Amino acid sequence: MPARIQLSHGDGGKKTSALIKEVFYKHFGNELLEKSRDAAIFALGDRKVAFTTDSFVVQPIFFSGGDIGKLAVCGTVNDLAAAGAEPLYLSTSFIIEEGFEIGQLEKIARSMGDICRQVGVSIVAGDTKVVEKGFADGLYINTSGIGVVMESYIPRDLLDGDEIIITGTIAEHGTTILALRHGFQNEHICSDCKPLKKIIEHLGEALCHVKCMTDPTRGGLATVLCEIAEFHNMGMIIEEEKLPIHPHVQTLHQILGTNPMFFASEGRLVLFVEKGQGTKICRLICEIEKDAAIIGTVISDDRKFVRLRTPIGGQRILTILQNEMIPRIC
Amino acid sequence: MPARIQLSHGDGGKKTSALIKEVFYKHFGNELLEKSRDAAIFALGDRKVAFTTDSFVVQPIFFSGGDIGKLAVCGTVNDLAAAGAEPLYLSTSFIIEEGFEIGQLEKIARSMGDICRQVGVSIVAGDTKVVEKGFADGLYINTSGIGVVMESYIPRDLLDGDEIIITGTIAEHGTTILALRHGFQNEHICSDCKPLKKIIEHLGEALCHVKCMTDPTRGGLATVLCEIAEFHNMGMIIEEEKLPIHPHVQTLHQILGTNPMFFASEGRLVLFVEKGQGTKICRLICEIEKDAAIIGTVISDDRKFVRLRTPIGGQRILTILQNEMIPRIC
Repeated sequence: MPARIQLSHGDGGKKTSALIKEVFYKHFGNELLEKSRDAAIFALGDRKVAFTTDSFVVQPIFFSGGDIGKLAVCGTVNDLAAAGAEPLYLSTSFIIEEGFEIGQLEKIARSMGDICRQVGVSIVAGDTKVVEKGFADGLYINTSGIGVVMESYIPRDLLDGDEIIITGTIAEHGTTILALRHGFQNEHICSDCKPLKKIIEHLGEALCHVKCMTDPTRGGLATVLCEIAEFHNMGMIIEEEKLPIHPHVQTLHQILGTNPMFFASEGRLVLFVEKGQGTKICRLICEIEKDAAIIGTVISDDRKFVRLRTPIGGQRILTILQNEMIPRIC
Repeated sequence: MPARIQLSHGDGGKKTSALIKEVFYKHFGNELLEKSRDAAIFALGDRKVAFTTDSFVVQPIFFSGGDIGKLAVCGTVNDLAAAGAEPLYLSTSFIIEEGFEIGQLEKIARSMGDICRQVGVSIVAGDTKVVEKGFADGLYINTSGIGVVMESYIPRDLLDGDEIIITGTIAEHGTTILALRHGFQNEHICSDCKPLKKIIEHLGEALCHVKCMTDPTRGGLATVLCEIAEFHNMGMIIEEEKLPIHPHVQTLHQILGTNPMFFASEGRLVLFVEKGQGTKICRLICEIEKDAAIIGTVISDDRKFVRLRTPIGGQRILTILQNEMIPRIC
């Protein structure tokens, strides 16, 4: 562990994970915190509740497909959805830099209100802090959220043959921020930022065939697959040619020499489905998300490797993100 | 409304309140948000749940009596306590500036762990973001919290003759930060930052005589009394000589010409108690908080004035904080 915080401690990859374990878990770790992925799950009276938090520091704060306000609501709603919960109540807390335009704050607040109404979730608690000019970058937004876990969703261990589905094209949010930072404005590259609640509702009772879910945000698809393989003590094979990817996103990564598998989505869900149920579940999802695809299979593997099988039959081992691609994508 | 955010939009006084109404309520307001004071209260299954959030940007991050970590846990625990709830689960989210010393982060995490163990609350969800050097001021911490409201606590309308209790000496947290900013290091001036859960537990069934509670943080005692007078359409008379205040705190304010009634506490509760029950409740609180005192009475007053009666019989009208005393006290 280095003596000082580096940007890569915030990229959602290897160094973030080490910092969390070696500093935070060390001092205030507990079973619920350490086993929670997208949200903590606990009983509260007669309900199974999901609880999650995220701070948003994305730069730029307005981007193609959204802004920091839309992202802040979707991020927390999606963490609840990935925990199989119906999102009910959000809190939000603003840290605003002195001199920030109130007109811009209004735009952001409007985005938040629009998504809340669309999802049917309410912001019920808030806080506003202001720091002197030079001590923030416009504004930072935290959202925390509470949801009730759907009864049909029972998370359980992954087994050999379980099928892996992604609900749409990958890497669009991260690639949009990457393009903006490099000054590539391209109308075809647009963040996928959107609430995932509808997919969960649409699956309804069929959620009983889903064993695990997550949303591939910071660190991208490669990182979340590796983390889940590690957690479940299983391997995975991912078929490269089945990965849905927008051709403009693909092209930009080819130009820059970056790997879209490490770039965040903000409106996609990865589902691990009982062996034999993949086609049925994927077809259901395709009714509302046309690009959903089965992208691979869980396999037994003591080394917990996630292998990417290329179209010509080669295999590459995927790892979690080792160093930040670009900071502050969410 | 000015065109840009000013520091006074974050002081918890008049401008914060205007910003919240004119920007946030306008776009995502709802009944729960607008009527919530320290925490939102709603039913979740068979439980009455309290939910709250706060971001902490205090500067300096280490101060006499605490640090940003202790403050972040106490702040949220105390908002839940002020809502009459037993704090159960917290989330925390860090925004850290590149280059921040990991040794200092450890100290802060240790403070958070210590207070959590003392209170019996668990941090179950977290998030870590890093921003480039120059885009934060060391670190900012958000905590959100969930608690279950005690059955014996039934908030209700204030009436003429209800008694007002404060659980200890006022203004110590805000004054400690003020002293540090002015370079007055004084071993007698120390933040009162501490968790309030014990007072609520100690009151137990006697909470049935308490009609309203709040913790006088940003804006200080004057601001919260005025807000509650406004909300309940009542006036108040506060006896200046009954206000518990540490002599060194008093002296510092006399030197600087500031008013301690506008300075934050971070370990005090204000209780509004049924007429005739004040002495009994105050005696109970004094068993664990020796400086607790009855400081005044609720009166009928269409103008909703909070009057401060001076020892020689004069009266001054208190208002909510009009302009920041010092920024970033919490």
